Amino acid sequence: MTTHRLIPTAWHSVLGTLPVAITVESGDTIVTETIDANGWDKDGNKVANGPNPMNGPIAVAGAERGDTLRVDILDMTPNRATGWTRAALAANVVDPSFVTQLPERHRVTWLIDRNAQTARLESPPAALADMVLPLAPMIGCLGVAPAGGQAISTTTSAEHGGNMDYRRIAPGATAWFPISVPGALFFLGDCHAMQGDGEIVGTGIETSYEVTVRLTVEKRSIVWPRGETERDIFTLGNARPLEQALQHATTEMVRWLAELGLDALSAGHLLGQTVRYDVGNVFDPAYTMACRLPKNALPGRGR
Amino acid sequence: MTTHRLIPTAWHSVLGTLPVAITVESGDTIVTETIDANGWDKDGNKVANGPNPMNGPIAVAGAERGDTLRVDILDMTPNRATGWTRAALAANVVDPSFVTQLPERHRVTWLIDRNAQTARLESPPAALADMVLPLAPMIGCLGVAPAGGQAISTTTSAEHGGNMDYRRIAPGATAWFPISVPGALFFLGDCHAMQGDGEIVGTGIETSYEVTVRLTVEKRSIVWPRGETERDIFTLGNARPLEQALQHATTEMVRWLAELGLDALSAGHLLGQTVRYDVGNVFDPAYTMACRLPKNALPGRGR
Amino acid sequence: MTTHRLIPTAWHSVLGTLPVAITVESGDTIVTETIDANGWDKDGNKVANGPNPMNGPIAVAGAERGDTLRVDILDMTPNRATGWTRAALAANVVDPSFVTQLPERHRVTWLIDRNAQTARLESPPAALADMVLPLAPMIGCLGVAPAGGQAISTTTSAEHGGNMDYRRIAPGATAWFPISVPGALFFLGDCHAMQGDGEIVGTGIETSYEVTVRLTVEKRSIVWPRGETERDIFTLGNARPLEQALQHATTEMVRWLAELGLDALSAGHLLGQTVRYDVGNVFDPAYTMACRLPKNALPGRGR
Amino acid sequence: MTTHRLIPTAWHSVLGTLPVAITVESGDTIVTETIDANGWDKDGNKVANGPNPMNGPIAVAGAERGDTLRVDILDMTPNRATGWTRAALAANVVDPSFVTQLPERHRVTWLIDRNAQTARLESPPAALADMVLPLAPMIGCLGVAPAGGQAISTTTSAEHGGNMDYRRIAPGATAWFPISVPGALFFLGDCHAMQGDGEIVGTGIETSYEVTVRLTVEKRSIVWPRGETERDIFTLGNARPLEQALQHATTEMVRWLAELGLDALSAGHLLGQTVRYDVGNVFDPAYTMACRLPKNALPGRGR
Repeated sequence: MTTHRLIPTAWHSVLGTLPVAITVESGDTIVTETIDANGWDKDGNKVANGPNPMNGPIAVAGAERGDTLRVDILDMTPNRATGWTRAALAANVVDPSFVTQLPERHRVTWLIDRNAQTARLESPPAALADMVLPLAPMIGCLGVAPAGGQAISTTTSAEHGGNMDYRRIAPGATAWFPISVPGALFFLGDCHAMQGDGEIVGTGIETSYEVTVRLTVEKRSIVWPRGETERDIFTLGNARPLEQALQHATTEMVRWLAELGLDALSAGHLLGQTVRYDVGNVFDPAYTMACRLPKNALPGRGR
Repeated sequence: MTTHRLIPTAWHSVLGTLPVAITVESGDTIVTETIDANGWDKDGNKVANGPNPMNGPIAVAGAERGDTLRVDILDMTPNRATGWTRAALAANVVDPSFVTQLPERHRVTWLIDRNAQTARLESPPAALADMVLPLAPMIGCLGVAPAGGQAISTTTSAEHGGNMDYRRIAPGATAWFPISVPGALFFLGDCHAMQGDGEIVGTGIETSYEVTVRLTVEKRSIVWPRGETERDIFTLGNARPLEQALQHATTEMVRWLAELGLDALSAGHLLGQTVRYDVGNVFDPAYTMACRLPKNALPGRGR
Repeated sequence: MTTHRLIPTAWHSVLGTLPVAITVESGDTIVTETIDANGWDKDGNKVANGPNPMNGPIAVAGAERGDTLRVDILDMTPNRATGWTRAALAANVVDPSFVTQLPERHRVTWLIDRNAQTARLESPPAALADMVLPLAPMIGCLGVAPAGGQAISTTTSAEHGGNMDYRRIAPGATAWFPISVPGALFFLGDCHAMQGDGEIVGTGIETSYEVTVRLTVEKRSIVWPRGETERDIFTLGNARPLEQALQHATTEMVRWLAELGLDALSAGHLLGQTVRYDVGNVFDPAYTMACRLPKNALPGRGR
Repeated sequence: MTTHRLIPTAWHSVLGTLPVAITVESGDTIVTETIDANGWDKDGNKVANGPNPMNGPIAVAGAERGDTLRVDILDMTPNRATGWTRAALAANVVDPSFVTQLPERHRVTWLIDRNAQTARLESPPAALADMVLPLAPMIGCLGVAPAGGQAISTTTSAEHGGNMDYRRIAPGATAWFPISVPGALFFLGDCHAMQGDGEIVGTGIETSYEVTVRLTVEKRSIVWPRGETERDIFTLGNARPLEQALQHATTEMVRWLAELGLDALSAGHLLGQTVRYDVGNVFDPAYTMACRLPKNALPGRGR
């Protein structure tokens, strides 16, 4: 189990079958510094163009189409004292008749206090003068090369992952992605110091991070991304409208529960009374819905 | 401040301008026993037809169109040893191509242990033999008479409230509804011993409850239902698709924040990084989305 | 077969179980004058409030829940020299980011030339100075009382019909509605001198009409409204999002084709290659989609 | 103006920046034989894998990002005596609760009579024994390389075009696409001998065609695909849900009308009373809606 440091020389705004940045063995750990969604690095230099430039792709030896890539997010360390957001709600998250009341969506700066692990607006409006928020780092965009020669924009998402902006993809979590090409070709970037559900201003607090992940190939198949935190398991569906994303995520959870020994009837009973849905990105072309199940609701898990 | 006991002699499957069951003063408390979604009471007698027969309407003296009805949910006590659910996921919450893999949606019985405050299936499948779940009571359907002479089915929801199936409408919570007719005409029923997000089997654990609420008229206007718990404030949007429900709820939250002194710019900053969305009913004609904000994120609330 | 003249003394902005305006026998003809969507009659007097005040309800003797009401639209004669529209596209039919570029939605007057059977703007913008459009009359809102004590606003639509704004509901056409209450309780109003698909400015050319319909009870059941013109048969689904309306309409057409002797396989072959979809209302809470099949595509119809 | 014959040696299931098959001058004509959606050619040989293998890309000299590619469809000649369809409605075009009543979606053969210009099922069910349908050829999938290094599957569609399955993209029509890469990189394939609206069985009558197109670079910008037939102009939006596709198409039509001298107010008046919407593909990940305007409704066009 080797630890690699990936120092990117190119970044990508699509996830596809692109020239490999580094090849690792299954089980290896990679440390890499991501740049922000507009391509600014930890030193404030613009080194790439947006949207959401990705580090990678990282090839994992032995990965084949039909396998699953396990991604353990071991650490995320902010490495810049500032982040930025858009200043206004996106037009698609309010009533159409309310759109004319939204302010301009200019860019604003946040100050990130790495000691206190908090963020605050550099020039807050008076009403928010005292707003200091705890950091809650997450990876906004990550996933693998899609099937069939596709190269999918980092502004959207699908079965391969992508720009899902789900806040439980965070340090300590594990995510799984369905592998479509040899080597899996993993990408990551677009880290946020924090973000509300839905990324409804079109951004989290966008900044640069040092990220440590461990990549492992598993010889089994999944359809949509899955994940696990200390307390929950979850599946992710990506589509519009939001109920189609919910359908994908729910169906994937039923498949997962089948692997755990629950037939569709048992899965219905369990999910019907214990499921939780979380909203990921509702800003981009595909929306993300998580179907989440507390581990303590799973049979034999110590209820 | 009087406490009334409402003993229904009729139940209603629409919320509309119907004959008043009881008239109370603003600030009065009402204790009433609700029957289950199919019309079975605490003694197991079928006293009404479904869907979701409501107690009420309760008229509140002095309520006028344009006012707001505040509903404090003071207590919910289960008064029957059994509840029931549907056995399978609804066809609309899985992928269309997966529908053929769902089992029949027959009715199954749950045993409610009122001492232990838990529920379990009467005849669980083997995989769920040890599943015992903590009760989490909630009111599935409540609201006021809608405007313009409408009588809206208890299978759906709109600005007036209705069948929202949101699990934070629970003991200790407060909900507000926009009043459209003199007296407000409040209805409630369809209580659940517990329910997962979305009511994705088409039911929570359906049973009868003794419910205690306090009704207060407030001389201010809202557009969509609002609520408050110990930790959060929330707004509720009801529509399809789910993103339209999200738009309604988000817009209402922006209006609420404006009343609290935050202009649209400040609201965008705050919601963008701290909002939470919860899924209510995704089974019925209108879906429900809650836009929720932790109170500790509100300016001046002790962050 | 009697011909009745219904002279309304009250109008309704909901379709529900309301006091009967007139009772007729199955097969009778009714002549009645409708007022415009804001309640202005043929003489320019405001006699009712909007939205979409309806004439009716007309009870048909012998109609029972589970029957079907056949409505033959025998004639529509405009009886006012003016109509009106809204001046701008509705906010929900353009991209959310484009909403700020829409003009105000004020009311504008059209001149209706009943001899030439044309309409033109009273004060057209320069670019439309020569725009003279042929009249294409249609009934915007019609249907029967819904089930279960509901009273559904004339701004929306469902299984019972309502505000569908489908331009093939026009002179010479027949429409069918599923009956939910004794007497059927038929309503009509909201006539348009013409209208584009979708009613995307929120109005057709709104004016008053003398309408002649024949009402017949049929002892068979349907689920969603159906219709027939000289050249086509069609079914109507009402819901959001638009694909759900399409699902309802397509499913109803499959049921209709089954009644005509085509099993689901044959219906798939036929619809797959010959179906047409038309957009009704996309302005109101429920959208309308028509599933239409040219009669000459039906087996044994002279292809 | 040269006429080229493109004889493909490779086919593509994505539209992207791929190796150029042929480079032509603006205004040149290209004749090429397309294979069917599963990769079978005119001789019944499988020469490529699906889905929807494309001929191309064809580079047009001088085309730059921001330009528009004009595609005149000069001719489509069927060159095989058979086509195929799927036998059943897709699960997503009927009510979720109706899905279990659909038959299997196996592949069935149609006989194409090139003299009579008709098609009929090789082994029709009894109810369709006499069904003979007139050919109505169309190009199911066509468009240009998308922006930003994307390679978008031929099962879906976006601003660049793709699998729109719109039946007015047919001989005699002109289509325009927004150019995102040097040379435009035009692709075409997936021709249908006929197809109902929506491609609701997941196919038209899939077969091989000889297609003749003329490609011309225009130095102006558009956002979404546009088209023109003898009688109409139209714009195409691609997205889910269907109302978002409608929003894109309507917005693009307003932009087009602005180029023709109509401000947003005039466009609203004109579209409000004369627009037609047509449904393209409702089977694939993105749905297609056409916003269509009869030319005789355009100012100065001889109304």
